[in-house]
Amino acid sequence: MRQARVHRIATAGPDDVSGLDEAIAAGRIDPAGIVAILGKTEGNGCVNDFTRAFAVSALSAALAARLPPAAVARIAMVMSGGTEGALSPHILVLERGEAEADVAKGPALAIGVAHTADLAPEHLGRMGQVWLVAEGVAKAMHDAGIDDPADVHFVQIKCPLLTAERIAAAGARGADTATRDTLKSMGLSRGASALGVALALGEIEAHALNDAVIGSDFGLYSGRASTSAGVELQNHEIVVLGMSQSWSGPLAIDHAVMADGIDIEPVRAALKRLGLEARGQLASEERSRLVALLAKAEAGSSGRLRGSRHAMLDDSDIASTRHARAFTGGALAGLTGLTELFVSGGAEHQGPDGGGPVALVVDRRKGES
Amino acid sequence: MRQARVHRIATAGPDDVSGLDEAIAAGRIDPAGIVAILGKTEGNGCVNDFTRAFAVSALSAALAARLPPAAVARIAMVMSGGTEGALSPHILVLERGEAEADVAKGPALAIGVAHTADLAPEHLGRMGQVWLVAEGVAKAMHDAGIDDPADVHFVQIKCPLLTAERIAAAGARGADTATRDTLKSMGLSRGASALGVALALGEIEAHALNDAVIGSDFGLYSGRASTSAGVELQNHEIVVLGMSQSWSGPLAIDHAVMADGIDIEPVRAALKRLGLEARGQLASEERSRLVALLAKAEAGSSGRLRGSRHAMLDDSDIASTRHARAFTGGALAGLTGLTELFVSGGAEHQGPDGGGPVALVVDRRKGES
Amino acid sequence: MRQARVHRIATAGPDDVSGLDEAIAAGRIDPAGIVAILGKTEGNGCVNDFTRAFAVSALSAALAARLPPAAVARIAMVMSGGTEGALSPHILVLERGEAEADVAKGPALAIGVAHTADLAPEHLGRMGQVWLVAEGVAKAMHDAGIDDPADVHFVQIKCPLLTAERIAAAGARGADTATRDTLKSMGLSRGASALGVALALGEIEAHALNDAVIGSDFGLYSGRASTSAGVELQNHEIVVLGMSQSWSGPLAIDHAVMADGIDIEPVRAALKRLGLEARGQLASEERSRLVALLAKAEAGSSGRLRGSRHAMLDDSDIASTRHARAFTGGALAGLTGLTELFVSGGAEHQGPDGGGPVALVVDRRKGES
Amino acid sequence: MRQARVHRIATAGPDDVSGLDEAIAAGRIDPAGIVAILGKTEGNGCVNDFTRAFAVSALSAALAARLPPAAVARIAMVMSGGTEGALSPHILVLERGEAEADVAKGPALAIGVAHTADLAPEHLGRMGQVWLVAEGVAKAMHDAGIDDPADVHFVQIKCPLLTAERIAAAGARGADTATRDTLKSMGLSRGASALGVALALGEIEAHALNDAVIGSDFGLYSGRASTSAGVELQNHEIVVLGMSQSWSGPLAIDHAVMADGIDIEPVRAALKRLGLEARGQLASEERSRLVALLAKAEAGSSGRLRGSRHAMLDDSDIASTRHARAFTGGALAGLTGLTELFVSGGAEHQGPDGGGPVALVVDRRKGES
Repeated sequence: MRQARVHRIATAGPDDVSGLDEAIAAGRIDPAGIVAILGKTEGNGCVNDFTRAFAVSALSAALAARLPPAAVARIAMVMSGGTEGALSPHILVLERGEAEADVAKGPALAIGVAHTADLAPEHLGRMGQVWLVAEGVAKAMHDAGIDDPADVHFVQIKCPLLTAERIAAAGARGADTATRDTLKSMGLSRGASALGVALALGEIEAHALNDAVIGSDFGLYSGRASTSAGVELQNHEIVVLGMSQSWSGPLAIDHAVMADGIDIEPVRAALKRLGLEARGQLASEERSRLVALLAKAEAGSSGRLRGSRHAMLDDSDIASTRHARAFTGGALAGLTGLTELFVSGGAEHQGPDGGGPVALVVDRRKGES
Repeated sequence: MRQARVHRIATAGPDDVSGLDEAIAAGRIDPAGIVAILGKTEGNGCVNDFTRAFAVSALSAALAARLPPAAVARIAMVMSGGTEGALSPHILVLERGEAEADVAKGPALAIGVAHTADLAPEHLGRMGQVWLVAEGVAKAMHDAGIDDPADVHFVQIKCPLLTAERIAAAGARGADTATRDTLKSMGLSRGASALGVALALGEIEAHALNDAVIGSDFGLYSGRASTSAGVELQNHEIVVLGMSQSWSGPLAIDHAVMADGIDIEPVRAALKRLGLEARGQLASEERSRLVALLAKAEAGSSGRLRGSRHAMLDDSDIASTRHARAFTGGALAGLTGLTELFVSGGAEHQGPDGGGPVALVVDRRKGES
Repeated sequence: MRQARVHRIATAGPDDVSGLDEAIAAGRIDPAGIVAILGKTEGNGCVNDFTRAFAVSALSAALAARLPPAAVARIAMVMSGGTEGALSPHILVLERGEAEADVAKGPALAIGVAHTADLAPEHLGRMGQVWLVAEGVAKAMHDAGIDDPADVHFVQIKCPLLTAERIAAAGARGADTATRDTLKSMGLSRGASALGVALALGEIEAHALNDAVIGSDFGLYSGRASTSAGVELQNHEIVVLGMSQSWSGPLAIDHAVMADGIDIEPVRAALKRLGLEARGQLASEERSRLVALLAKAEAGSSGRLRGSRHAMLDDSDIASTRHARAFTGGALAGLTGLTELFVSGGAEHQGPDGGGPVALVVDRRKGES
Repeated sequence: MRQARVHRIATAGPDDVSGLDEAIAAGRIDPAGIVAILGKTEGNGCVNDFTRAFAVSALSAALAARLPPAAVARIAMVMSGGTEGALSPHILVLERGEAEADVAKGPALAIGVAHTADLAPEHLGRMGQVWLVAEGVAKAMHDAGIDDPADVHFVQIKCPLLTAERIAAAGARGADTATRDTLKSMGLSRGASALGVALALGEIEAHALNDAVIGSDFGLYSGRASTSAGVELQNHEIVVLGMSQSWSGPLAIDHAVMADGIDIEPVRAALKRLGLEARGQLASEERSRLVALLAKAEAGSSGRLRGSRHAMLDDSDIASTRHARAFTGGALAGLTGLTELFVSGGAEHQGPDGGGPVALVVDRRKGES
C-alpha cells in the first residue's frame, strides 16, 4: 500500500526554504518521495513576476543538496504568483511513500505523475496538444492507481509555450503555429491542456472539440484542471490527485466547481462530503483538518457578476487577475477561515467563464485544534 | 411618524446620475427628502482619486436642477473610492419623509443628521475634535429620535483635514497643529472623529481618552463609526443610523464588529438578528431583502491574519487599502451573495486593528426573490 | 488679417478652471474666439482614466457661463491623461481673432478647424475613414488659409470609436465592422485617422494604402498627426496648425519627427529653425518663448531602443504608455527645460514605430526671461 | 602600476549571468580582480522588489564556481531595482589588476574598497554612523591611492538597516535606536552614510552636523555619495571611485551635481571635461566611449520642478521613485543617447532636494563607433 502526504509550509519570502529544510531535517519529509511542489509567491502573477523563478531556483538548490540532479529535475515545481489581499505565501509539498503500519485503509488520496513527449510547436493550442495531454492524464491516472475518471479530483499541469525561436523552427519546417504572439501562446497552451484533461476525464466528448473552440468557446471546460505555462519545458508535467483503494492514510480529496467568483456553496458541499460540517465559517478544529485548498479565479468576460457591474476588466492600474485572486481568495477565506490558499489565475477552459474549479484535501482524523 | 428609505442604485461610471434621475422622475425618490448620498466609485481610493470629486460634481449638478442651492449643500455626500475585485460601483441614497399609511409601526430605521461648528485647526486630531464630534453625535441622535446609544448602529462622519493655509492661519495666532503633514492630518481627523463617536455612544469613557492615544492606541475604537476626511469642509457632517420607536416602515438596521478581515460570523449573527437565516451564503429571497451593507476594511498593522503572513503592507505596487477592500469585500460577498457593498478603507479607531465595523440595513418584508 | 493665440495655463487638478476664468476675466482670452482646448490631466491615460471627462465637464461648465451651448459644443476639447514623471498638468487654449494693429505681418501660426460627417461604424478603421479624414483635413487647411501641405505642422484629431450599440446597428443593416473589440476599435480609429492625415498632406500616396495596412504596417505613418478616440462623437473634430501668409502675429510653428523615444536632435533642429539656438538645454530667455510642445510617445513594438532591451512591454504593474510618456517626457524636458509639455501616448501610424511627431509653437519676439 | 576596468554588460533578466560568464570565459574579465558589481534590475525598486536578491543570488552562484567563498563574499554587490521607461537592465563589473604594458600612464580611474566595523544599532542614523563611514571612506581612498578628496568622484556605499531583532538587542542593553520603524531606518542609514561621505570629502564640516540634521535638513548633502541599505550586512561596504596618479589606463571619471531632475547642463560640462564634446546628444563615436553613468534621482519634497507642479508625490498607483527614475533617466538618455544608465532612487543627503549626483566614466581613447 502507498500513502500520500501533503505538507503545507509557510514561506517568509520567495526564496525561503527554511521550512522545507526543517521538515526534511526533522524527518517529516523524505526528499526522495517528493513528487511535486506547488507554491504561492508574492509577485504580481503576470509577465514580469520573477518571484516564481526565484522560488524554483531556491527550492532546486535546497533539494540538490539531498538528491541527485535527475531526481530534482523530475519534481514538478509549479509556482503561482500573486498573494493579493491576505492570501498567505506558502508551498504545498506533495510526497508519496510506503503506507505507515497503522493508518486507515483506503480509499485515500492518490498521487500520480506523468511526463508527455515534447510537443511540436505547431501543435500547441491545437488538437494535437489536447490529445497529447489526454494521453498523459491517462498515464498519470494509471501511475496513481485510479481507474475511474470520477475518482480524479484535480489535475495540475505545467505546459509549454511558444518562443520566437520555436515559432521560427516550426516555420523552417514549413509548419505554421496557432499564434505568433508568445504571450497569447500561454493562454492557448493552458486552454488546450485543460481541454485535454476534460477529454481524458470524460467531461467533454472528443467530437465536441476542434482547433476553433480552443481559446474561444469557454462554455467548454474541465471542472478539475489547473494548468500553467512555463518557458522551461517543451513537454507537459502532469500531476493527478484523486481517490484510490490502493492508497491508504488519513488524507482524502474532493472538488467543487464555482459558477462565479463568490459561488462558495459548492465548496461548502464538498467540505461536507469530506466530513467537515462547515456551518458558517470552518471552526477551529475543522479548519486544522483542511490541509490544502486549490482554486482557479478569474474576472470573467462579461464585466458583471450576478448582473452587477465590476471594474476589473477596465482597470489599467491593476491586472484583472490580481483583482480576481484577491476577491475570490477573500470569499474562500471567509468560508474556511484560512488564508494559506492556493488561488491562481489564468483559467481558460478551467471551470466556467468567471468561475473555476476548487480542490480540497482534508485530514479525516478528528483532532484538537 | 417618520419613515426612512434607502435606495441602492447602480452606477455606470463616477458621473452616472441616470439612475438617480430616473428614480426621481418616477417618484420613487423625493429629492427634498434626501439627507445623504453615500457612494462607491471606481478610483483607487487614495490620494489621487478624482472619481470621488467627479461623482459629487455630477450629483450636485443633477440635484441643483430640482433643489435650491442651500438644500443641495445640506445633503451629506460621502464618496468612497475603490471597488476592487468584483465590488460594484453604486450609490446609497438616504431619504426621510412622512410614513406611508399602511406601513408597519416602529421601531424602524431612523436617520438623524447634525452639522458641528467649524473646527479650529489646532484642535484637529486632538481632544477638542473628539468632544466636538461627541456633541454632534448627540445632536444627530436627538434629530433621529434615538435616546439610547445602544440603538445607534452606524455613524457616518465627514470631517475636515489640515491644509497648508489652515496650518499657517493657526500658526499666525500662535497656535500649533497636531501635525504639519496634510496627509497625516486626514488619518488623525478620521481617528479623532471615530473616538468622538465612541465617547458619545459610551463605547469608551472620557477618562480613557487624551491627545496621546489619538492615532496611536488602536485598542481604543468605536464599533459603529465610519469616518472620512475631505478638504471641502471645516466642520463635521454627521449622519446617525439606528432604530427608533418614532419611526416606522419595513427597514431595520443592526451592526457587527469584525475582529479581522475574514471574520464574517459576527456579520452572520447580525443578519440573523435582522431575520435573515443566512445558512451559508444568503439565498436569493433573503439577498433581495438586504438593502445595504456598510463596512470598514484595513490590512492591520501586524502583517499577519490569524498568524499567517500577508504581503499587503510590503506591496509597493498596490496600496494596502486596495488589497484590504478586495479581500474583505470578497469575504462579505461570499457571505451575502451581493457585490454592491459599501466597503471602505482608512479605519483608524473604527473597529479593532485589522478588523472593522459592519452595518446592515434589511427590509423586513418577506418577498419573492 | 487674422491672428492665432495659444495660452498655456497650469492647472491644480483635473477640474481646475481658475486659470481660464482669470484669463477671460482679465481680457487675455476672448471666449468667443476659442477654437480648441488641449489638456494634460493627471490620470493614467488608459481605460479607467476619468480625469479627462472630469476636465471636459469642468471646462464646459466654465464656458457655458459665457457662451451659448452650441458655441461650447463647437470647441474641440482634447484631454490627454498621464503626466508621468515631472510632466506638469496644464491646458493649451487655442484662440483665433482679428490681428492686433501693430503685430508683425505673416507668415504666422494659422489655425483651421473642420468637422466631418458622421462615420458609419463599418467604415471605422478602414479606408472609408481614411478618405473621410483626408477630406476633413483639406477643409481645415482651407479654413486656416493654408494651401501648401508643407505648411501644415500639426493635425490634432478627435475621432470616434465602436461601441456595442454601434456594432449592433451596423450588423442590423448587414454591415460588418473591422473589429468587435471596442478597445481595439480605438487604436484602429486613431490609426486610420492618422493615415488620413498622411494622405491629405501627401506623406503617403493613396495606392500604398488599403484596409489591411491599417493597424498593422507601422512603416506607414504621418509625421504631423496626433489622434485621439472618444466615445462622445461619431464624426471627427479636426484642428490644423500651420503657417500662413494670411495670418499675422508673433507665433510660429514647426515640427520634427523623433525616430525613437530619445531622438531629441530633430527637435533641436526644429527649435533652431524657429529661432531658438538651443545650445544644450534652452536657456531661460529662449525657454520663455517656447509656448507649446506637443509630442507623441510610445514604447515601440521591438522591446528595444537602439539595441538595448527595455522592460516597458513586459511590465504588468505600469502600462507601457505611462513608461513612454515619462521617459520621452524627460528627454524633451531635458532639451527644453520645460515640464508643461503635451506628451501623449497611443501613436498608431503617428510617427515611426517607437518614435513620434513633435510640434513646437514659438513666440518670435525676443524678450527678457 | 594598477589599472581599473569597468565592464558594462546587458542582462536579459534579473538572474541572467550569461554575459558575465562569457566575459570570464573569453578572458576579458578575471574573476579574482572583481571588486564590485553594480546592477540595475527590472523590479519596482521598492519594498517588495525581489529582483535585487534574485540577481545577487545568481551572480554569487556564478562566481562561486570560480572563486573561494570568502572571495565571493568580499565582492560588493549593489543591485538597484527599477528600469522605468527605456532604462535598460545591465550590470557594471568593477575590476582591478596590474596595468597592461602599453597603456597610457596616469592619472586614471582608481578604485578603492573598505569595509567598516559593525555598526551598533543605536548608532544607525546618528553621528556614530557618520563618523564610522567617514573613517571608512578615508580608508578606501587610501586603498585607491587617492590623497586629495577633490580627486574622489563617486562613493558607493552599502549600509545596514534596523530589524526588529537588532532594535530589541539594543534595547536589551538599555540602548535606544534612532527609530523603531525598520523602513524608516533605511532612509536614515542612507542619509547618515551620505553625510559620512560629505564629511570625509570636506563637502561639509563636522561642526555643521549633529543627530538632528540627519534625515531632516536636506540642504546638507554630498555631491558624490550614492548609498543603499541592505538587510544582509551590519557594517558598511565602501567603494571609492576617483582619479589617481598611481593608476594607469584609458579610463577617467568625473562627476556633476544636478540641481533638479532635468538639470543636464552640469552633466554636459563634466562630459566636456572628460573630452566628449557633447554638442547636443552624444554622437555615436563619443557615445561608445561613455562606459558608465551613475546617477541618483528623486521627486523632491516641494511637489514642483522649476515652479511647475508635478503629480509624483500624490500618485498612489506608482511610487514617486519610479516616476523620478523614468523622468530623469529620460533626460540623461536624451543627453547621452544611452539607456544603459545606472539611475537609482532614494537620495537622502545625496545631492540637493529634488536633484542628485551624477558620475561619468569615460574611455579616453578615440575610436570608431
